[in-house]
Amino acid sequence: MHPYLNQISKINLFKSLSLDTIEQHIFKDSIIKSFEKGEVIKGRGDCLNHMIVLLFGKIQTEIVDFNGKIFVIEQIKAPFVPAIGFIFSKVSLPMDIIAVEKTTILFIKKEEIFSLLMKNKEFLEIFLENIGNKVNFLSNKLQINTLKTIREKIFYYLIQLYNQQMSDKIVLQNSLEELSQLFGIARPSLSRVFSDLEKEGIILKKKNEIKILNKDYISNLFENKK
Amino acid sequence: MHPYLNQISKINLFKSLSLDTIEQHIFKDSIIKSFEKGEVIKGRGDCLNHMIVLLFGKIQTEIVDFNGKIFVIEQIKAPFVPAIGFIFSKVSLPMDIIAVEKTTILFIKKEEIFSLLMKNKEFLEIFLENIGNKVNFLSNKLQINTLKTIREKIFYYLIQLYNQQMSDKIVLQNSLEELSQLFGIARPSLSRVFSDLEKEGIILKKKNEIKILNKDYISNLFENKK
Repeated sequence: MHPYLNQISKINLFKSLSLDTIEQHIFKDSIIKSFEKGEVIKGRGDCLNHMIVLLFGKIQTEIVDFNGKIFVIEQIKAPFVPAIGFIFSKVSLPMDIIAVEKTTILFIKKEEIFSLLMKNKEFLEIFLENIGNKVNFLSNKLQINTLKTIREKIFYYLIQLYNQQMSDKIVLQNSLEELSQLFGIARPSLSRVFSDLEKEGIILKKKNEIKILNKDYISNLFENKK
Repeated sequence: MHPYLNQISKINLFKSLSLDTIEQHIFKDSIIKSFEKGEVIKGRGDCLNHMIVLLFGKIQTEIVDFNGKIFVIEQIKAPFVPAIGFIFSKVSLPMDIIAVEKTTILFIKKEEIFSLLMKNKEFLEIFLENIGNKVNFLSNKLQINTLKTIREKIFYYLIQLYNQQMSDKIVLQNSLEELSQLFGIARPSLSRVFSDLEKEGIILKKKNEIKILNKDYISNLFENKK
């Protein structure tokens, strides 16, 4: 068994693939490479001919300004597939991808991905589901970004789930960690607002289930924004 | 020739398909339906079993709050494929899709899309390129959203292109219309700032080509933000 099989199967994108398929297709023609702290994994201006699979370690994306000053855009921990929007794009990478610590990357040829997508329907389905979820997450984050307070963000999110689930008992679909990423706020702040809302009798929260007790409070919250 | 062939071929996603393929696969098992103003095209809580192709007209997406109050999220004009993130997602639609005027929709079975993606490599490539571009556009917009002034937004965008193109002469990749969408500002405001920047000798703009004249101005602009 390939020593990294366990690690790659932790990534949602590859979960539908049998271990055999991963061994035969993903690892066969792929390159595994280690990078030391500070090394460039992919440089700006490059076109991606491979899917970059971050197996171990941590990377960051950086851009430089016209004077060569560096700005860090984001840091990403393994296991993850970064820059997924650029793999199939015709534009070149607008940033450097740099190892922040000792990092192991699996480079899978784009052609191998295409061939797997065309052969394996389950892989195609999971792949499109993953990119679709990414599009939804980003669109949603953009909408939530326009709201100022944490309370507005929380209720906008709950209203969406209510529209999706069509029930007064709303089942949260994300962990607090994921929600704090979606809202762009620290997790302790989010927890505090949730418990404030309970104390004020606006919601009732049991594990990941939420019941709305004061619907008018929420309507007024958004009413006053207009 | 199918009467809507011309309209569907205006959509990027379908540009790679031959007219024959569109006639045989896209139109064969698909449903074309017209909606009057105010009619629900797809309701919240539904799962999408079809790709929705907006051929003619205009739609809007809406959510309702816990008291049944309606909020409009966005309006979309034909031709377009809305809610693309939800087509392959397992979650149900968190909003209503409503016709704003007389609207014609082509519903293509998800299964037909899968089958075409697995048979036609060019379609697969264009399809993934389109979704990839969407992911890039949204990520980019999220980053640009965190910047306050139009000048910061413009230079952040130009710095990205500079990193991509690795040249001092930057070729704009978007129309002013697209840029104003990306920045979330009105087009006349954007034009005004571009001409101010020229008057102040910070940039030189010739059609879609930009030369940076005052690099320090830009470095200072971002420096002062920290």
